[in-house]
Amino acid sequence: MYKGLTEELARKTDSRILLAVIDGVGDIPNAELGGRTPLEAAETPQLDKLASEGALGLHIPVSPGITPGSGPAHLALFGYDPVAFDIGRGVLAALGMEFDLEYGDLVARINFCTVDDDGLVTDRRAGRISTEKCIELVELLSGIEIIDVETFVFSVKQHRACVVFRGEGLDDNIKDTDPGLTGKKPVNVTGSGKSARVVREFITEAGRILHRKHPANFIILRGFSIYEEFPSIRDRFRLTPAVAALYPMYRGVARLAGMDVLKCEPWDLDGQAGAVKRALETGYDFIFLHHKPADSAGEDGNVPAKIKAIEEFDRCLPSFLKLGFDVVCVTGDHSTPCPMKLHSWHPVPVLINGGPQRVGYSKVFSEKEALSGALDSFRAMDLMPLLLASAGKLAKFGA
Amino acid sequence: MYKGLTEELARKTDSRILLAVIDGVGDIPNAELGGRTPLEAAETPQLDKLASEGALGLHIPVSPGITPGSGPAHLALFGYDPVAFDIGRGVLAALGMEFDLEYGDLVARINFCTVDDDGLVTDRRAGRISTEKCIELVELLSGIEIIDVETFVFSVKQHRACVVFRGEGLDDNIKDTDPGLTGKKPVNVTGSGKSARVVREFITEAGRILHRKHPANFIILRGFSIYEEFPSIRDRFRLTPAVAALYPMYRGVARLAGMDVLKCEPWDLDGQAGAVKRALETGYDFIFLHHKPADSAGEDGNVPAKIKAIEEFDRCLPSFLKLGFDVVCVTGDHSTPCPMKLHSWHPVPVLINGGPQRVGYSKVFSEKEALSGALDSFRAMDLMPLLLASAGKLAKFGA
Repeated sequence: MYKGLTEELARKTDSRILLAVIDGVGDIPNAELGGRTPLEAAETPQLDKLASEGALGLHIPVSPGITPGSGPAHLALFGYDPVAFDIGRGVLAALGMEFDLEYGDLVARINFCTVDDDGLVTDRRAGRISTEKCIELVELLSGIEIIDVETFVFSVKQHRACVVFRGEGLDDNIKDTDPGLTGKKPVNVTGSGKSARVVREFITEAGRILHRKHPANFIILRGFSIYEEFPSIRDRFRLTPAVAALYPMYRGVARLAGMDVLKCEPWDLDGQAGAVKRALETGYDFIFLHHKPADSAGEDGNVPAKIKAIEEFDRCLPSFLKLGFDVVCVTGDHSTPCPMKLHSWHPVPVLINGGPQRVGYSKVFSEKEALSGALDSFRAMDLMPLLLASAGKLAKFGA
Repeated sequence: MYKGLTEELARKTDSRILLAVIDGVGDIPNAELGGRTPLEAAETPQLDKLASEGALGLHIPVSPGITPGSGPAHLALFGYDPVAFDIGRGVLAALGMEFDLEYGDLVARINFCTVDDDGLVTDRRAGRISTEKCIELVELLSGIEIIDVETFVFSVKQHRACVVFRGEGLDDNIKDTDPGLTGKKPVNVTGSGKSARVVREFITEAGRILHRKHPANFIILRGFSIYEEFPSIRDRFRLTPAVAALYPMYRGVARLAGMDVLKCEPWDLDGQAGAVKRALETGYDFIFLHHKPADSAGEDGNVPAKIKAIEEFDRCLPSFLKLGFDVVCVTGDHSTPCPMKLHSWHPVPVLINGGPQRVGYSKVFSEKEALSGALDSFRAMDLMPLLLASAGKLAKFGA
């Protein structure tokens, strides 16, 4: 088990922590909001009350200037150094589809693509074929049999799919076969090891099967990664943790960190609240709650939708607060500024309510208030020690 | 010698630095002060003048969320990474009693305890015997002779004492014998090395001697640690450093960092001022001044006493300032919030006056003003470079 200072000092107590992530909540001033951010423009009486009775700060997801994907951003929030604990994109994609990975599995993302008669790639996305078409092609590829390994293929969306190889002694020292540009051949898989051989066979067989399936007549493989065991926050921080998330990828990353997955029905914040209620009754003391729509709105550059997503979260907050948490943290995993329509590196507002805090520094939950908040700014991976300390779950270091 | 960038750049100059530590000065808003902290509520005209003519900031003692003991907290202020330079509890206790440790000594804390006829611990503190009784029992244990080592036993307080083994080749790979609970036997010391053998013999002999001394009829040993040489700040930073502290533990930690101990008479801030005056006359250029009562008041949750301790320090400050320091720093080693009655992880206000500073950002010395101070927030172990730089004691790095 990875063992740092926090792990040494962590102790089991009865106190309960809620870590609520409004995905992509951070933003930058939007011209259409007169220079405000969606979080500033949204009506959030519940969050503002928590802020005025708690402490605000900003977290830096990875390090200044670094824009994280969802995987590293969440790992950092869970107390993992997101650079040291790297999740391969293949693994992340498989987790996102709730494929039941086993340790040692080699995973890669598939892009269906178009090649011409000379084998040169003419479209790296095969004209963005429909998801239905993708499912149909994946069915064909699922028939591929390779000696010494089990092979699983599953569709993701449009031209994207995933392949998992399961067997002894696989490694992920394999470069993407994506040429990056059209007019070039896919990159050959070199090397004499088992993994290279398996991947080469798979590509050859896939090419044979897809030969007449224009525009999806070949595949490109990317993001080769081995699914490895992570030290769980259950062991590291002596928590009994669970996740209430509606999207598979977030459940997957939480599972990687050792959280149990809660069944959320109906598929909305009410369903999540019900699941959290039951979890607390059965002894869980750390809940990761994930709220997705703010990020999706940010990626679409849809300011009203982002405001609506934040306000919806605010409206449902009381049904979580009334369950009896000792420490409540609300933050985002990263910023997704509407003007950028992308994830970004901008620090993310954090709110901690409960436990001994320097209260009285902030009145509302916003990017600007967070900058002058009592928590100051800190790396996302330092959030967990702050939450554990606030909940009385960390012993003193030294005499 | 440990050598980092600061060590490489440090140069000897005539400038003088005062590092004044108001122990446990940081706090959180107190309900009984209408949401102010003791530091905010205290009348501190001297500190406020220093603040308005200097620069404020906050230091993070170890890392976010980590609550330090006095040992690591002070080491960090002296420029040591408090995680890398770990002081064992046994060593800290011996330093606290001003026992004259030698490098290589193996130290452990003793708890007198009560065991029943089956050897099961019935009271881990022997009914908290009086200090007088403790001194009497220590006298008996001091007679124990063990081959190959010198053995020293001394009393601390009530049921607590210390033992020091001195000899070649000792190590501290020995687990606490404290069972942690009553109704269990003390944990056996296992292993075939010299240290294990010595400790086993000591425990056996102690058991024989204490046999009829109910309730203190056995001992538990904890915090085994070897006293190791630390690189001194004299060598690291080219300082001639001394400590003016009224309590042994702080003198001990300062001595570990290579400071000379000043004799303070009378036993108060006036005595400390007199000692510092004489020290400056004899060529010392770095003074660590320690003021304890604010921490004691915080641990008692005694708000008026904490305010009084801070005001007392403020009143005596001129007798230090007039001695002619080029740089004066006032801070705490950690926060000891009255509502918690404990050390905490909350960042600690720092004031630096003297040398080229971005003055004019702050008007008073308080937690809140420190958050928006020109020094921003930084790890405690980075304070020394800031003080050395302010005093013109650090050369430029690179061309």
